[in-house]
Amino acid sequence: MIDLAGNRTLGQYLYDCLKAEGITEIFGVPGDYNFSLLDTLEEYDGIEFINGRNELNAGYAADAYARVKGMSALITTFGVGEMSACNAVAGAYSENVPLIHIVGSPKSMIQKEKELAHHTLMDGDFDVFRKVYEHITSYTAILTPENAGREIPEAIRIAKEKKKPVYLVVAIDLITKPVISHTEPSQNKTKTNDDALQSAVEHIRKMLEDVKKAVLLVDMKTLRYNLQGSVQQLAEQLNVPVASLMQGKSVFDESHPLYIGVYGGAFGSKEVAQAVEEADCIIAVGAVWSDVNTSKGTAKLNPLKMIEVQPDSLKVGVASYMNVNGEDVLNALKEIGYRQKESVGTTSFPYDTMVGDPTAPLEAASYYPRIQQMLKEHDIVVTETGTFYYGMSQVRLPKGATYIAQGGWQSIGYATPAAFGACIADRNRRVLLFTGDGSIQLTAQEISSMLENGCKPIVFILNNNGYTIEKFLNVKVDIEKQEYNEIPEWEYTKLAEAFGEEAFTARVRTNGELDDAIKKAQEMNAEKLSLIEMIVKDQMDGPEYLNKIRQYLETQEKQN
Amino acid sequence: MIDLAGNRTLGQYLYDCLKAEGITEIFGVPGDYNFSLLDTLEEYDGIEFINGRNELNAGYAADAYARVKGMSALITTFGVGEMSACNAVAGAYSENVPLIHIVGSPKSMIQKEKELAHHTLMDGDFDVFRKVYEHITSYTAILTPENAGREIPEAIRIAKEKKKPVYLVVAIDLITKPVISHTEPSQNKTKTNDDALQSAVEHIRKMLEDVKKAVLLVDMKTLRYNLQGSVQQLAEQLNVPVASLMQGKSVFDESHPLYIGVYGGAFGSKEVAQAVEEADCIIAVGAVWSDVNTSKGTAKLNPLKMIEVQPDSLKVGVASYMNVNGEDVLNALKEIGYRQKESVGTTSFPYDTMVGDPTAPLEAASYYPRIQQMLKEHDIVVTETGTFYYGMSQVRLPKGATYIAQGGWQSIGYATPAAFGACIADRNRRVLLFTGDGSIQLTAQEISSMLENGCKPIVFILNNNGYTIEKFLNVKVDIEKQEYNEIPEWEYTKLAEAFGEEAFTARVRTNGELDDAIKKAQEMNAEKLSLIEMIVKDQMDGPEYLNKIRQYLETQEKQN
Repeated sequence: MIDLAGNRTLGQYLYDCLKAEGITEIFGVPGDYNFSLLDTLEEYDGIEFINGRNELNAGYAADAYARVKGMSALITTFGVGEMSACNAVAGAYSENVPLIHIVGSPKSMIQKEKELAHHTLMDGDFDVFRKVYEHITSYTAILTPENAGREIPEAIRIAKEKKKPVYLVVAIDLITKPVISHTEPSQNKTKTNDDALQSAVEHIRKMLEDVKKAVLLVDMKTLRYNLQGSVQQLAEQLNVPVASLMQGKSVFDESHPLYIGVYGGAFGSKEVAQAVEEADCIIAVGAVWSDVNTSKGTAKLNPLKMIEVQPDSLKVGVASYMNVNGEDVLNALKEIGYRQKESVGTTSFPYDTMVGDPTAPLEAASYYPRIQQMLKEHDIVVTETGTFYYGMSQVRLPKGATYIAQGGWQSIGYATPAAFGACIADRNRRVLLFTGDGSIQLTAQEISSMLENGCKPIVFILNNNGYTIEKFLNVKVDIEKQEYNEIPEWEYTKLAEAFGEEAFTARVRTNGELDDAIKKAQEMNAEKLSLIEMIVKDQMDGPEYLNKIRQYLETQEKQN
Repeated sequence: MIDLAGNRTLGQYLYDCLKAEGITEIFGVPGDYNFSLLDTLEEYDGIEFINGRNELNAGYAADAYARVKGMSALITTFGVGEMSACNAVAGAYSENVPLIHIVGSPKSMIQKEKELAHHTLMDGDFDVFRKVYEHITSYTAILTPENAGREIPEAIRIAKEKKKPVYLVVAIDLITKPVISHTEPSQNKTKTNDDALQSAVEHIRKMLEDVKKAVLLVDMKTLRYNLQGSVQQLAEQLNVPVASLMQGKSVFDESHPLYIGVYGGAFGSKEVAQAVEEADCIIAVGAVWSDVNTSKGTAKLNPLKMIEVQPDSLKVGVASYMNVNGEDVLNALKEIGYRQKESVGTTSFPYDTMVGDPTAPLEAASYYPRIQQMLKEHDIVVTETGTFYYGMSQVRLPKGATYIAQGGWQSIGYATPAAFGACIADRNRRVLLFTGDGSIQLTAQEISSMLENGCKPIVFILNNNGYTIEKFLNVKVDIEKQEYNEIPEWEYTKLAEAFGEEAFTARVRTNGELDDAIKKAQEMNAEKLSLIEMIVKDQMDGPEYLNKIRQYLETQEKQN
C-alpha cells in the first residue's frame, strides 16, 4: 500500500500507485485535457511517458507491455483520444490484460456548467464516454481529490484480480490538488473454501484411480494468473505430457521435455491431437473455450474426463466446485499421489526439419523451420492475427521465450504496436515481430515509434498481396472475386526512410535470400531495427494449419 | 421509398435504400463477419466499396463524404472493426453528420448459443458493442429479415432528420435472406405550428422597428439542414452583412458582397467583431454555441438582440417558439418588410494582401495570403485541427468552395482520411488538404488510399516540429519542457514512395519556394497527387488568431 506521506497531489498519488505495481512507462498521446497529467508525469521520478503515434496504437502497445510486465497504463485525452482507444481496451478485456486507462477531462467548472466544450458530443453530457467504457472495462471511476485515495487502489485491485482493463477519468484542474484521505483497499483475492477443496481432491483421486494416460492443457489464464510455476511442478510430479491451447502458446516452457506442442483439434499436429484426445484424463488449467482454442469446434475433449482448474473455481467432470483458488488446487494435485509410468519420450514438432532448396521460392513449409531455427532463448515473439498466427502456433519456442498474440480478439494491426510495447517493457530482450502486408498497413506508424525510442526488433513482413487470411476464411466466393481483400502494394522496406531513420532492410523471395537476411539481421540486432519483407509467389500459400481450416470450411459450406 | 420488387435479399435491400439517398460509395474494412455484406456489394450495381487502411480512417473518410454528398455509409466487422471506428462515429455525432454505420456480426446460431467466438469479449454477450454505440449514435438496430423493411428506412430517416450517425448490425447469415415485408417509414419532418410562427413573426417585426444595423450569422447546421439558399435570399432581401461562426465556414458564399468574414470573438478579425458586436440585431441561423464558436467565451453576443433560427425552433430574445421549421422562418423573415439602408460596402480580409520577401523564411503571415490566392472556385478545402484550423478560418474562400474541418470534435488525424473521403465524394472537384506534422502521423496511411484510388489532392504538411497547437494551448509549463509534445521527424515527401506510388513532392522553407511548389502542384494537379512539406523556422510561429488565444490563456492563467 502506498503511503500518502501527507501531501501528495492526485496526479502524484496516481503515479505512486502505478509505480508500486511495477509500471515504469506509461503510453499515450497528449491532448489539451490531459496536459496536467503529463506535466505532473514529466516532473515525476521513475515513470516515463511514451508517445504513441495515435491512441489505438498506444493502447495496443500498453496491452503488450502488460503481457510482459503484468500491468500497464494508458493516458488519453477526453472524447477524441479515448474513443480512438476503444478497440485496444476491449481487446485487453477479451484477452484478460490488466490495463489502467486514464483519461483527462475538461475543467470541473466547464463540466458543471454543461458547456459545449470541444471534444464533446455538444450536448453538455460529460459522462457519456465513461458510460461507453463501462461496457468494455471491469471498473470505471470519476476521480476527485476526495475519492482518489479509495478509487485508484480499488481500480488497480480489480484490474489485478480480474485481469481486465479499468477506466479512470479526472478533470484537468484536479490533478494538482492534494489527495484528501484514503482507505486501505480491500484485498479480495479468492480464498479457498477448504471443504470444497478437500471434497474436490477426493473426487479427483477417485477419478485418477483408473487413469493410464493423463495430459495437462495450459492456456492464457495460466499465464495471467501466474500459475506457470505450479503447473510445471505439477507436470513434473505427475510425469504427464503438457500441451497448450492456441491462446496459451509459450505459457509452458516449449523446450521442456514434457511439452508436446499446441493442441489444434482437427487443424493442428496429429501427434498432439492423439495425445490429448486419447488421454483418460485431461487437466486443463486456466482454459478459455473460445472458437480459436477449440479449433472451430473440432476439438474432441470429453468433459467427463476433464479436470478444469480455473483461477477461482474447479470442475471435475460435471461437478463444479466454487471458491477454490487455482494455485491451491494445483498444489493439492501435486500431493495426490498420482504418477504416470510411461515416459513422454521425445516429441517431434512440425517445423523441426529445415526443408526447401536455397533457390526455391519462399513457402510456408520452408520459412517456418527457418524461423524456428533463428529463435533464441528469452526472445519475445509477437505474432499478428493472419496466416502467421496459425503457422507460428506450430513453431517450437526456445526456453524463456514469451509469445504475444491476440488469439481471441484477433484485431488486425495489433502486432506492430504490440511489438513496440514489448520493446519498451523489456529493453534487454530481443523482440521479433511477425506480421503481414495487410495488417501492417493499419498501424505502420508504430515502426516510427520504435525507431524514435531506439527499439531494435526484427520485423518480418509477409507480403502475400492482400488479406490472405480473409481469403482463406471466405469460402463462399471465388478468391479472384474478392476485390475488397486486395490492398495497395507498399514498398515496406522504405518505411523506415520515410520515418526519417535508418534500418537494416531486405526483400527476400527465396529460402536462400531469407537465410541471408536473417543472418544479417541477427548480426545487426544490437545496432539497428531490421525489416525483412518476405515476398511469396503464391498468395494463397499458407501453413498446413490454415490449409486444414480452409478444407474444413469448404466441407461445411457444401453441407449447407 | 424503395420498391421491394418482391424478392430482394436483406443486403440488396439495404443497398437499395442507401443508393436512394445518393450514396454511390461505401467505406470500410473487410473482416470475416462482414464477408456476405461485401460479397453482396461486389455484385451490386451502383455502389462501390472503398477500402480504408483501417476502420478509424474509413470512418473519417465516410464523415467527410457525407459532408459533401449529404450522407455516407461505413461497413466494419464485429467487435474489432467497429470498436476501431468509435472516434469517427462519435465525431459525426458531435458535428451533425449523417453516417450509416453497418456492422456484420457472427452467425445467428453462434450468437444464440452464446459461443465464445473470436472478436468478442469472451463472455457470450453479442449485444455489448451495439450498447456502446447507443451512446454515440442516434439510433441502433439489430437487423433481421423480418424487421429490415422497417428498421433500415427508419434508421435512415432518423439520420437525415437529426443529422446524426446511426448503427445497424446484422448477422452474417442473414444478409442473403429475403426481406420479409416492410412498412412505409413515417416522415417526421418538423411541421411548423402556424400560430407559433405568426406570433414569432409579429415579435420580430416589433423588434426590427428600431433596428439600424442587423447582421446575419451562419453556422454548421445552416449547411446540414440545407438552409444556405434561404439564408442567401434573406441576406439579399434584408441587405445585411453576413458573418459565419468558426464551425460554419464556407456555409455562406465567401465571395458574396454581403459576406464579411468569420466571427472569432476576441481572436478573429476586428472588423468582423465590430460589425457583429455593434449590431442592433443578430439573426443567427443553425448556430451551435460551442467553445470554438464562442471563442472561449470572448464572443459578445447580446441574447436580447438575438433572433436564433434553428432547424426546428426559434428564439427571439428570451422568448422560445417551438415547432417552427427553420426554412419556414427564413421565408417569413424575407417577407417581413425590413431592408437595411446602409450598404455593406467592400470588406477587406486578413490575408488579402501578399506579403513576405521570396527569400524570407515561411511564416504564417506570409503563407496564408499565398494559400488564399491559390484557391479556385469549387475547391474542397480540408483543414486539420491544429494551427491551420485557426489560420485557415481567416482565409477568404472562392465561390462554390466547400470547407471541411472538425471545429467542435477536433480529433487530430481527421483531415487526411477526410480529404480521401472528399476526393471519393466528388472526383471532379479539386481537393486541398492542410495538415500538420503532428496530425498526419496519426493517419498517414490514408495517403496510400488516395494514391490507390487515383485521387490527386494537393497536400500541404506544415512541419513545425511537434504538436505546436498543444504547445500554444498549454500555458502552464514552459514550451521547452513539454517533451510529450515532440514527435519523430519524418521525411514526409518520401511517404508516397513508401506507399509504392509516385507523387509530386516538394520541401519548402521560403516564400519563393512555396510559390514555386504551388505553381508546379497546380500544373501537376491533373496527373499526380502533390505533397508540399512546409518547413517553418520558428516552431511557435502561428496565425494571428492563435497568438491572441495564447495571450488570452496566459492572462487567464495569471489571474488564477
